[in-house]
Amino acid sequence: MTNVAILGFGVVGSGVAEVLKRNGPHIDAKVHAPVELKYILDVRDFPDSPFAEFIVHDFSVIENDPDVNVVVETIGGAKIAKEFTERALRAGKSVVTSNKELVAEHGYELMRLAQEHGACYLYEASVGGGIPIIRPLKQCLAANEITEICGILNGTTNYILTRMIRAGLSFQDALKEAQQNGYAEQDPTADIEGHDACRKICILASLAFGRHIYPAQVPTEGITGVTLADVAYAESCGRKIKLLGRAIQGEDGKVRAFVAPHLVHGEAPLAGVEDVFNAIAVKGNAIGDVMFYGRGAGKLPTASAVVADVMDAARNADRPKYLDWGPGGEDVTVPPEDVSSPWYVRADAAADQIRSAFSEPAFLARAGAPAGETAFLTRSMTRGELMEKLEGLQPRSVFRILEN
Amino acid sequence: MTNVAILGFGVVGSGVAEVLKRNGPHIDAKVHAPVELKYILDVRDFPDSPFAEFIVHDFSVIENDPDVNVVVETIGGAKIAKEFTERALRAGKSVVTSNKELVAEHGYELMRLAQEHGACYLYEASVGGGIPIIRPLKQCLAANEITEICGILNGTTNYILTRMIRAGLSFQDALKEAQQNGYAEQDPTADIEGHDACRKICILASLAFGRHIYPAQVPTEGITGVTLADVAYAESCGRKIKLLGRAIQGEDGKVRAFVAPHLVHGEAPLAGVEDVFNAIAVKGNAIGDVMFYGRGAGKLPTASAVVADVMDAARNADRPKYLDWGPGGEDVTVPPEDVSSPWYVRADAAADQIRSAFSEPAFLARAGAPAGETAFLTRSMTRGELMEKLEGLQPRSVFRILEN
Repeated sequence: MTNVAILGFGVVGSGVAEVLKRNGPHIDAKVHAPVELKYILDVRDFPDSPFAEFIVHDFSVIENDPDVNVVVETIGGAKIAKEFTERALRAGKSVVTSNKELVAEHGYELMRLAQEHGACYLYEASVGGGIPIIRPLKQCLAANEITEICGILNGTTNYILTRMIRAGLSFQDALKEAQQNGYAEQDPTADIEGHDACRKICILASLAFGRHIYPAQVPTEGITGVTLADVAYAESCGRKIKLLGRAIQGEDGKVRAFVAPHLVHGEAPLAGVEDVFNAIAVKGNAIGDVMFYGRGAGKLPTASAVVADVMDAARNADRPKYLDWGPGGEDVTVPPEDVSSPWYVRADAAADQIRSAFSEPAFLARAGAPAGETAFLTRSMTRGELMEKLEGLQPRSVFRILEN
Repeated sequence: MTNVAILGFGVVGSGVAEVLKRNGPHIDAKVHAPVELKYILDVRDFPDSPFAEFIVHDFSVIENDPDVNVVVETIGGAKIAKEFTERALRAGKSVVTSNKELVAEHGYELMRLAQEHGACYLYEASVGGGIPIIRPLKQCLAANEITEICGILNGTTNYILTRMIRAGLSFQDALKEAQQNGYAEQDPTADIEGHDACRKICILASLAFGRHIYPAQVPTEGITGVTLADVAYAESCGRKIKLLGRAIQGEDGKVRAFVAPHLVHGEAPLAGVEDVFNAIAVKGNAIGDVMFYGRGAGKLPTASAVVADVMDAARNADRPKYLDWGPGGEDVTVPPEDVSSPWYVRADAAADQIRSAFSEPAFLARAGAPAGETAFLTRSMTRGELMEKLEGLQPRSVFRILEN
């Protein structure tokens, strides 16, 4: 018998309650024991909700109830969520979360704490919404040494870029539309500046490479600098602009992780990932390339990932499962400065200036380009080499090109 | 300590030996105990192979060695592979397989046998090569009721179709090219007639819907009837022809499973799956659509899925994991006759004849069509309704259109 408490009755939390209820018999059958919702913690009351009877306002009710064995944390943020997670784990309760900020910032310590108290700390829903990615990474790809992870990890920015590409909306208009459709928050900073994608690539990279990689170790650039001019130039060479989170393990064993807009070839699988969908491509030394695709956010997809973790915690109550990684440190990563790639550059410079700085630049054209604007693709080089060549020119947009 | 015996030193078997060797330290670390290759069973000797010392010719050596705890079956077929699998399981050894024919025909009984003897029977590599799909289906999607599975499950036919579409090769020429490139067997029947895809959709459907679905219950049509005319008509309406294995659970709880060429919209994720790649799309009542993509075959990708299962068996030696399903039966499936969809038809008939039989057919055009050839798309209807309307006309190609 598993009793579940949900912390936070927001979008994901209410989705979890709904999935537990709707698929109840199905879930009980798969776990071979009843899985029951017992409490929902929220500061508000929800008198009209079918779940009103479950609402409590005091976390200690949950903490002190020995019958609660699984706590679902869907509060978000790294403050009160962290405190409640720690208290639940210390009480020997397993915690399931969709909170990428908390896992990216404190995953290692929370996993250690879980282990000390014989509990699970599970976080499938923290990356890729409903897409199963955490377990496949850990279990199914176990036989591989993973060399690279590359993903479209944020649905909001992918929606905005899709609307810029397909409907010709400016960044500002596409953002406004995303907000109207409920795909972007009123304060969209975490999405459009790439912080959300950064947290997710941290979680994936920590799991894949075995040591905690913190957001502060991951140079992050969002999409606010992407213009319709860039979209048009990308299209002129058969490419699409996508915000990618990437983590590459070099031969020195160190990880280069970064988040930035990239030009992706139109026929690459990642180019076909549109709107609010996410996709995560993984490269292993035996498996080659695999990709996981699905809705990266949304109430029920995310809730279904949470509930799968709840079921896993319920099934493994007497033998907790650890999807964990080792401690972080400055030695885990190096800045991605030595990662070579071709680049896309749009600059206020004459073609002749470009030609004298770069060997064989591939110039691009677009309708309506103002005089003095030049865009081109470079050969493969590091960022340092690129910046040296761009000295004295006036680059407006500088994006990597994703190879193969 | 886990000792592994590989049965069959062919493409996959030798790949397993290679991955065990190449990623040895990595694997031992993840299992927290050594995983050692002990025997390779084959009728041949391989004096020049680095694995020559492991070769044995008599299965009873493996069967009677109490130190062997995991047997990898990469023989293929449902005869000797079945006998050895049964004997290994009866001896309490876990069996890991890439053999889709055996799992599709005898999975239920072999899983029961494994359970009776406290062993695992694992088959991640039997579907989708290296793509992690079996565990995600069972574990990560556990919280969902799965309503439909739809996949490009056979790399050979997908390669042939891709070459017909992109290079304008005829079916026969594309097949010849696939054989030259090692993507098709000298006897390509199992691939081009859809039997291989049929076995894979059986395995996926059995797992998703919980009861064994046998190949004989799955109407199967291959790609030998796909012509360049069909490819051109499909292209004229923005679609691509793909061989799909599908399994749909109706509201009556019964499964409609079938394998057939379909017209897929060019912007659908499955349309972008080219060459020998496979992809499996899963629809769940909470998760919505997710898709798994990767190399569906090949030595190392498949071997990496096998080795992941070996590691899982090693880790769970004292508590075997079951990825199993219930018994089959005539009541599990119904023929897909009541599955409605729009259809593509190419017929030797005049447009007027078509117009009088169908309400609002959408006619298609292609360059160089002979007089009397008519191709069109229908509204959504069942196969029975379609066939009734086509009576007296002379249909040459009849393919379903994949919706949404």
